[in-house]
Amino acid sequence: MTHAPLALSPLAVSLGDPAGIGPELIAEAWARRDTAQLPAFLVTGGASLLRAAAASRGIDLPIETIADSREAAGVFPRALPVLGTNDGDWAPGTPGLDGARLALASLDAATQLAVSQRTAALVTGPIAKARLAEVGFAHPGQTEYVAAACGVTAQDAVMMLAGPQLRAVPLTVHVALADVPRLLTCDLIVRRARVVAAALERDFGLARPRLALAGLNPHAGEDGKFGDEEARIIAPAVERLRADGIDVTGPQPADALFTPRGRARFDVALAMYHDQALIPLKALDFDNGVNVTLGLPIVRTSPDHGTAFDIAGKGLADPGATIAAIRMAGECAARRAAGSEPAGAGINC
Amino acid sequence: MTHAPLALSPLAVSLGDPAGIGPELIAEAWARRDTAQLPAFLVTGGASLLRAAAASRGIDLPIETIADSREAAGVFPRALPVLGTNDGDWAPGTPGLDGARLALASLDAATQLAVSQRTAALVTGPIAKARLAEVGFAHPGQTEYVAAACGVTAQDAVMMLAGPQLRAVPLTVHVALADVPRLLTCDLIVRRARVVAAALERDFGLARPRLALAGLNPHAGEDGKFGDEEARIIAPAVERLRADGIDVTGPQPADALFTPRGRARFDVALAMYHDQALIPLKALDFDNGVNVTLGLPIVRTSPDHGTAFDIAGKGLADPGATIAAIRMAGECAARRAAGSEPAGAGINC
Repeated sequence: MTHAPLALSPLAVSLGDPAGIGPELIAEAWARRDTAQLPAFLVTGGASLLRAAAASRGIDLPIETIADSREAAGVFPRALPVLGTNDGDWAPGTPGLDGARLALASLDAATQLAVSQRTAALVTGPIAKARLAEVGFAHPGQTEYVAAACGVTAQDAVMMLAGPQLRAVPLTVHVALADVPRLLTCDLIVRRARVVAAALERDFGLARPRLALAGLNPHAGEDGKFGDEEARIIAPAVERLRADGIDVTGPQPADALFTPRGRARFDVALAMYHDQALIPLKALDFDNGVNVTLGLPIVRTSPDHGTAFDIAGKGLADPGATIAAIRMAGECAARRAAGSEPAGAGINC
Repeated sequence: MTHAPLALSPLAVSLGDPAGIGPELIAEAWARRDTAQLPAFLVTGGASLLRAAAASRGIDLPIETIADSREAAGVFPRALPVLGTNDGDWAPGTPGLDGARLALASLDAATQLAVSQRTAALVTGPIAKARLAEVGFAHPGQTEYVAAACGVTAQDAVMMLAGPQLRAVPLTVHVALADVPRLLTCDLIVRRARVVAAALERDFGLARPRLALAGLNPHAGEDGKFGDEEARIIAPAVERLRADGIDVTGPQPADALFTPRGRARFDVALAMYHDQALIPLKALDFDNGVNVTLGLPIVRTSPDHGTAFDIAGKGLADPGATIAAIRMAGECAARRAAGSEPAGAGINC
């Protein structure tokens, strides 16, 4: 993938759960900012705990607290800019309610910066959903939270996983596998595929992105022998998308789709359920997977891993996904800034 | 994976559909027998078409027709031993009924050689199921055919996919995804997992194989939030298998299971449905995937790819999986020959 010019305004990065691996990976990303060619970013809160988390990895992290996002770009080359004074104790591996409150405050602040266009994009650190729920977070996850903050329905905020070898979108996400055949409709596929096609063009610089739809059943049903969803739901969606002028193939047997030869033939795979997208992505690109929310008026990315409380503070967590999430957010923001369309996909905050 | 000593008696290799890539890959495997360290094998029929298929890849293939499998080991270093006079025209890419009849005759002959212990193992070439059905083949696939020839119920003949990076078993196979939750039972998991554990010990030389069970739902259901099959079906199966003394973990989120770190913790993953096993296997090990049938009184392997009529005769097909299937069959047969148990798993022809 080619690198777009970096945006001038900084990115907003949220801490994630302070007991997880989020803070130490932010510190690691800042320390590698030059070799990793990262755009300027600020962190919303957590100055003292970021310093402690950095020290645990042997990083002497200079931090400057700033009062306005416009200071971040100037500070970034010499110190990690931290906006605001929210902070807490660093207790890796032992999540608590104070930490959850700090994670939520940091997420709130970073999201507001991006939504109000004071930062060029939003990068969210990993949170523990169960903990956040205990302090009043009412969304299934950060994706839905960010969508709501942008005034976009969850239906139109589409999660894409992107790694060096694969981009994949699960069309249904956190639902029981038994419910997938019932939830999968032609309308759902068409609606989400349109968001994906528009976003790959606007944010990823692909003039005519190639979408590939997976089948639901083994061998894509083998001509209806095992399941009829391919003929009844997926093939009609392919026809409607082609009528829109979108370059789309499928339904294809999912095991063939993700082979090296299969992957060479598309820019993004649309999977029918969570694991159909997440298994190949994590098998191939585990340490560099980025979770991108498509269809929003803001650019939002996240490293595609959890809080990993079990290894927090031990120097074991790989910063690849955090670095990739920051770099991708910068690239997408720069493409939007350079693009002619004001928002695309007909959505505005 | 370590190499076991090779069996002395030859392996029987069936042609597969003569219009597919099977014959040319057999020729390629014989041509690479020394560098690939392959055990002696014979092919059941197809002398003239094997020669033509070889020529299309620039291989000058010496062939000797033999009348008894005991001649194969002596012939193998200087020529490809072909047993029997069944033959046909080589017409790559254009499958027909004559070809299907030849494929079936070759499969029959090779299976009988293995079942009667005149060869040490059976390696089957890729067939087109729909074509074989037209000439009277009444089985869903070669696995079920071979199981029936051995007097083993399809339930106890377990398909495992094995590549350099992963071994995976789909516990349900060619069924609609919507039917999987209903078909998945604790008894099915326990029965098949026992076959897998016994086979990895006997045929793959693992003293105490580590089995990992995938969850059915995303995040393995996340404590029952999306689906209850983990708690209701899979966890009880894990308990029963542990009571047998089998080293088993799970149910684990399937996307975590197949990451590099996840794969390091098991010897075989047991997947709940076809694509859950086949997607990671083919994403990681496409050109070297072997399909092994566990639980049979004979050793049977197959390259994990189809007939690929579209590229037959064009010199494009990769011989990696065929070579891996032949080598693995030789290794498994050698381990059985060296082992003390006569058959294991309580199954005899």
